[in-house]
Amino acid sequence: MSRPSPSPNAAPERAPDVLPLVPIHDHGRQRADAVRNRARVLDAAMRVAARHGAGNLTMDAVAAEASVGKGTVFRHFGDRTGLLTALLDRAERALQEGFLSGPPPLGPGAEPRLRLTAFGSAVLRHEQEHLDLYIAAVTDPHRRFTVPAHHVRHTHVAMLVRQLDPCVDAELLAHTLLGFLDTALTNHLLRLRGMDLPRLEAGWADLVTRLCP
Amino acid sequence: MSRPSPSPNAAPERAPDVLPLVPIHDHGRQRADAVRNRARVLDAAMRVAARHGAGNLTMDAVAAEASVGKGTVFRHFGDRTGLLTALLDRAERALQEGFLSGPPPLGPGAEPRLRLTAFGSAVLRHEQEHLDLYIAAVTDPHRRFTVPAHHVRHTHVAMLVRQLDPCVDAELLAHTLLGFLDTALTNHLLRLRGMDLPRLEAGWADLVTRLCP
Repeated sequence: MSRPSPSPNAAPERAPDVLPLVPIHDHGRQRADAVRNRARVLDAAMRVAARHGAGNLTMDAVAAEASVGKGTVFRHFGDRTGLLTALLDRAERALQEGFLSGPPPLGPGAEPRLRLTAFGSAVLRHEQEHLDLYIAAVTDPHRRFTVPAHHVRHTHVAMLVRQLDPCVDAELLAHTLLGFLDTALTNHLLRLRGMDLPRLEAGWADLVTRLCP
Repeated sequence: MSRPSPSPNAAPERAPDVLPLVPIHDHGRQRADAVRNRARVLDAAMRVAARHGAGNLTMDAVAAEASVGKGTVFRHFGDRTGLLTALLDRAERALQEGFLSGPPPLGPGAEPRLRLTAFGSAVLRHEQEHLDLYIAAVTDPHRRFTVPAHHVRHTHVAMLVRQLDPCVDAELLAHTLLGFLDTALTNHLLRLRGMDLPRLEAGWADLVTRLCP
């Protein structure tokens, strides 16, 4: 696995061309070490999840894989849910790059309706690729709406909805649209109700057309 | 609290005017006892939840309130989640009577669009009344779609959607509509996003109009 960029929640690494006074320098090095350690533990967690499934990931196994003490894993991520959320944030970053700055129709340049349609397909396919991680990370239904990944998706969808219709309650409508893409719902439909991905994608396109005529 | 009718999941009580052979009679009496005990434990759980909040409900407190052993509570409901689901099913029954057989526009007799609009308002108001129970009962995001209450709501909404437009993918569209009414979402919007119930009700009416033009 290649070296990952630090999480957006982590403290930013001090720029190397700054030459601060000694105590600040030490502080900067400590921070840089912390960022590197956090990324190393996260890399180890990715490998453990790939090997055994995210649902079976334990703090012990991650600590052993990263060759650090269990306390270090807890210090960086709080608990198992925090670690899974960090893994999910990293997986989500590839998707975010696609809809925030990737090529059209998912990225900027296409008209809002096309972007919105492409967004749904991209989310559905992305979550199927990382399904065990998304399922393992979302254990508390009330956290769904407060994780950073959800916030980025919601801001993006609300922006497109506003572009399509400035008069609508875009915040609410964006929640409705994202509700269709909810991991637990799509998993229920695909695994237990016998639907397939093309039907969900067609349903999404139909939903976009109906909600934003 | 008045004597409740047995849960739809419980074995039906034998009709008292039937005079069966002795072994069957015994079996019938055992069943009737089981139904009565289950209802008694459920009554006790309702009182405990009303006093301390459903989120603080424990199997010990319910057993003490019902004057039965803790094992009896576990035998009837499996675990705490099972007990909370049974409480939720009982609360849901009042709502179900309203939309299945109550007066229009919620019940039969009004045209489908009006019934669908009334359904959303009724669910929003009902869940606000029993909020701590709905929040406590939905701890697993993947169980949301398999609890009986959800199934009844989904069947009802899909029927109304089909009446409005026989060509649409009613099963999927009903999930989208119910996603708007999801307890965790509405709670997030009302408690954390500063929205009020009239805004959600207006959003629901708008959603019905857009989805079923």
